[in-house]
Amino acid sequence: MQSESYRPSAHPGGGVAERVVSCDLTFDVGEPADVALHIAAANGRAVRAERLDVTMDRRVLPVAVELATPHGGRLHLLRTPPGILSVSYRAELGPPPATAGQPAAAIRGDLPDLPDLPDLPGLEQLTYLRASRYCPSDHDVGFAVAEFGGLPPGRPQVEAITQWIHSRVGYVPGSSNVHSCADDALLTGQGVCRDFAHLGITLCRALQIPARFVAVYAPGLAPMDFHAVFEAWFDGAWWTYDATRRAPREGMVRIATGRDAADTAFVNVLRGIVVLQSMEVTATVTGLLPIDDSLAPHRLC
Amino acid sequence: MQSESYRPSAHPGGGVAERVVSCDLTFDVGEPADVALHIAAANGRAVRAERLDVTMDRRVLPVAVELATPHGGRLHLLRTPPGILSVSYRAELGPPPATAGQPAAAIRGDLPDLPDLPDLPGLEQLTYLRASRYCPSDHDVGFAVAEFGGLPPGRPQVEAITQWIHSRVGYVPGSSNVHSCADDALLTGQGVCRDFAHLGITLCRALQIPARFVAVYAPGLAPMDFHAVFEAWFDGAWWTYDATRRAPREGMVRIATGRDAADTAFVNVLRGIVVLQSMEVTATVTGLLPIDDSLAPHRLC
Amino acid sequence: MQSESYRPSAHPGGGVAERVVSCDLTFDVGEPADVALHIAAANGRAVRAERLDVTMDRRVLPVAVELATPHGGRLHLLRTPPGILSVSYRAELGPPPATAGQPAAAIRGDLPDLPDLPDLPGLEQLTYLRASRYCPSDHDVGFAVAEFGGLPPGRPQVEAITQWIHSRVGYVPGSSNVHSCADDALLTGQGVCRDFAHLGITLCRALQIPARFVAVYAPGLAPMDFHAVFEAWFDGAWWTYDATRRAPREGMVRIATGRDAADTAFVNVLRGIVVLQSMEVTATVTGLLPIDDSLAPHRLC
Amino acid sequence: MQSESYRPSAHPGGGVAERVVSCDLTFDVGEPADVALHIAAANGRAVRAERLDVTMDRRVLPVAVELATPHGGRLHLLRTPPGILSVSYRAELGPPPATAGQPAAAIRGDLPDLPDLPDLPGLEQLTYLRASRYCPSDHDVGFAVAEFGGLPPGRPQVEAITQWIHSRVGYVPGSSNVHSCADDALLTGQGVCRDFAHLGITLCRALQIPARFVAVYAPGLAPMDFHAVFEAWFDGAWWTYDATRRAPREGMVRIATGRDAADTAFVNVLRGIVVLQSMEVTATVTGLLPIDDSLAPHRLC
Repeated sequence: MQSESYRPSAHPGGGVAERVVSCDLTFDVGEPADVALHIAAANGRAVRAERLDVTMDRRVLPVAVELATPHGGRLHLLRTPPGILSVSYRAELGPPPATAGQPAAAIRGDLPDLPDLPDLPGLEQLTYLRASRYCPSDHDVGFAVAEFGGLPPGRPQVEAITQWIHSRVGYVPGSSNVHSCADDALLTGQGVCRDFAHLGITLCRALQIPARFVAVYAPGLAPMDFHAVFEAWFDGAWWTYDATRRAPREGMVRIATGRDAADTAFVNVLRGIVVLQSMEVTATVTGLLPIDDSLAPHRLC
Repeated sequence: MQSESYRPSAHPGGGVAERVVSCDLTFDVGEPADVALHIAAANGRAVRAERLDVTMDRRVLPVAVELATPHGGRLHLLRTPPGILSVSYRAELGPPPATAGQPAAAIRGDLPDLPDLPDLPGLEQLTYLRASRYCPSDHDVGFAVAEFGGLPPGRPQVEAITQWIHSRVGYVPGSSNVHSCADDALLTGQGVCRDFAHLGITLCRALQIPARFVAVYAPGLAPMDFHAVFEAWFDGAWWTYDATRRAPREGMVRIATGRDAADTAFVNVLRGIVVLQSMEVTATVTGLLPIDDSLAPHRLC
Repeated sequence: MQSESYRPSAHPGGGVAERVVSCDLTFDVGEPADVALHIAAANGRAVRAERLDVTMDRRVLPVAVELATPHGGRLHLLRTPPGILSVSYRAELGPPPATAGQPAAAIRGDLPDLPDLPDLPGLEQLTYLRASRYCPSDHDVGFAVAEFGGLPPGRPQVEAITQWIHSRVGYVPGSSNVHSCADDALLTGQGVCRDFAHLGITLCRALQIPARFVAVYAPGLAPMDFHAVFEAWFDGAWWTYDATRRAPREGMVRIATGRDAADTAFVNVLRGIVVLQSMEVTATVTGLLPIDDSLAPHRLC
Repeated sequence: MQSESYRPSAHPGGGVAERVVSCDLTFDVGEPADVALHIAAANGRAVRAERLDVTMDRRVLPVAVELATPHGGRLHLLRTPPGILSVSYRAELGPPPATAGQPAAAIRGDLPDLPDLPDLPGLEQLTYLRASRYCPSDHDVGFAVAEFGGLPPGRPQVEAITQWIHSRVGYVPGSSNVHSCADDALLTGQGVCRDFAHLGITLCRALQIPARFVAVYAPGLAPMDFHAVFEAWFDGAWWTYDATRRAPREGMVRIATGRDAADTAFVNVLRGIVVLQSMEVTATVTGLLPIDDSLAPHRLC
């Protein structure tokens, strides 16, 4: 099942073969509720097999609807009575396409090409330039410009930001909470994956580089959990960075893309009271995981 | 030029006839820059006549492109050399359609109707439930539920929120800045129109009511400026509220719709350094302005 | 050992007899360090017997010095080499004096009596009017005045604040962290004892009522831990309030008094790196604990 | 009037002769009020002549009392009826004593000398290690240690902090407000003198260096206003730094010393509503102002 071009190996440049990801969630639903789940692999084409099972008190509960989100994710809406809600998702995916991880020839946003203005940002880029809940880039312009503004714009700045975060912020479980924003990670010098991603996004946007949050399954992550990385836009493409360096980008499976963690939570309660009781995530690859040269350009499919 | 059905009057229920809005902006552009303007009337169909003139050092500068934003706005992108950039926009609009301000029959989001789940939120509603830069609704759930959670969901809660903000927050120019969020307005008890809107949105979202920010031209506002109101989703429609009560909603002309002020700024600098030098906004109606019963349901077109 | 006048009972107005408090702390000291401990009973006169044992890798480490803090506490400074630092404190105290809990006749601050200005605040009151790290009272004036400003100043406002906090904020272990301030408790509607105290102090100061933080041993608290309450100044005395209602005020033993938790931490590391490894606190009374009428005036000795 | 030993000059090392400072304040008092003024020169011994005139609606209003603050300041309390309150302060001071600006031989805190522990901090130093309203040093430890922790403790760290602030933060009137804290200055890269001082204090405390806020009259400042600097404790003394470099430290006249601007405001309203209407500050020296080598050690008397 392993593709010719992606032999998993212990060397940079090696490839990832088949990936299997899953998550099992249990919720206590206190009153009739509407719930949105953001747990399925975003890229339907890479999926070879997939299952989403939902039960309420052990009886099958149908998914109300699957919604396609603007930048390629899939959201599942449930309407559920009170009781114990169990969600089980499992997908098998082929290797990432050969073009992933390569410089883009001509990927553009949603703006029609203007012959004279080839690199004018489109609406997608504009959206990801804006400050968001956990990425208050308007507040951090001074710091970002003083620290990174002297570098050439685009890739050099994004790489410097990623390296700076890696060397300055410690990965400390429990050091942040659901209200923490990028400023907290920068100043306390601590955080978890979502804080690292928020800080990368914030510093990019403060330098006028579009940047966005990506929730992923991450084979190799330990302890296993949902993971988060960020993407920055330069040279006509979205490039993926992980300042935590806790799993190789090549094996990651995109779940959700958005402005920050507010857009990509694995569960959103739209009505009613729903409390997470248990959660288990897995993500594996066939063969060896590649070593990730963390600053090499990479594009996540 | 006044329509039969909209005789402007000094009584609630009176109507607005023709509206004329304009804005004149001057910027000092320090180096080659890309700029996005969010100043045109959102609803092209209501526009009878419209002009957008842009000059750089008194010579005409063409607009690179007009982009339609997801929820009905129009964004204009400029690429400009250094110098003095002048932007002049003027539009004449007819009266709001007769259906505005009335309860909606069947306005739905972007979700196909599901016979058994008629009021399941669509993607648009989901988006506007999420916390955003100036509307940290995740942080304020406890307060919102304690203060308003006892009321029936939907319209009663939104009306109570609007009234509470009006009675508790003072309109004080200069009391907030571009970094201020809804929490600041709630705690300091002061703000300007954008802070009032941010607070309304935040409290709605904290109660699981989708809510969003609307930048408008507002005939009757004094002193004249761009204005901001908010919309909340209930009973199958977006309803418009203005906790400042500084201009009648009936005359307002929508410019931009978004999560908060980060999505709707009248200018965004995408590249380069651009400093606002002067700004003049006008908005008038033919005839008398209506009196606004601030809690009556109203929909902005 | 029980005094005549303080028969412990299950009724309000009953009394507390002898109290025994202790704490045992273990620290991992990574390099030579200076440490300040704030764990001793503040009021030396009530102490019948007391012991402070400090060991470094099981050998006795002398306390460098005991410092008296401005408002009645006792601070112990240690200079320690690297290793395992163990601290053990134990005190037996008599019952609170009969005057505690009674209205004060003429307790004044540090200001000499001015015949014509009998209630002019002194330096102590001034200090506790000021905003502090976790009590940003300057930020919350608008909210405090709108919510409580209509009540008569002094006791009615403080009682209303205490009741409001009790009814609006949930006691949720883990909901806040060392950086959380009063605004977080007010808006999230959650916190632990220090957050309740910070919020009480903040709202008082925003109404021009001096207020301060008191760290205590609290017999009856469950689970047992250090506890925090607040004091407000009116009618010429400091009155003690506990918006958590988790232990009777009558049995409490004051440890430290200050602007907020920054002044009263049970340990401050002044030099070096010191990590808390374990901690155990006990506090008991002889006989039954009194029932606390939480709004009855009470003064803590 | 110029002293022999202090010939003002344009060269570093020159001296300051007589200094004259003044401030004139007008307030609108809306109801009976208590007001604390913090405008007098702190060091009474340096004062050669001094006047404080207070009038209410042009009639003399006596000062209720002068209070000595813990670290050398003088606070004046007023009780005033409604009306227009005018305050006028003027002082003539001699030159700073010859020992100012020199390394200290043996200045100690309030701790009795312990032969074996010569540099153990006293209560004064402990106080100024703690986080305060505008100096959230607990929140910024990670950043401070990563940026400055590699330098030798004490003077090298304080000098590096001062230089870093000067080079990274822009002095921009109007960029901050009364609620802004050191984090805002660090991240926005903008502030006024109080923000520069707050940031210096915060970074010092985060490195376990006691630091405090000093409000001063500053001859040479333009435009003239109250000014703020900070003091850090090392080598047994408080050393004064001004990261703004907007006036020579040698000519400064200390007004108030405290944890941050909350302790040193020139006016505090203790009761009633009092609105500042006008304010004028002057500060001059006889002869030329010295040039300040901003990193040379300096002690302010």
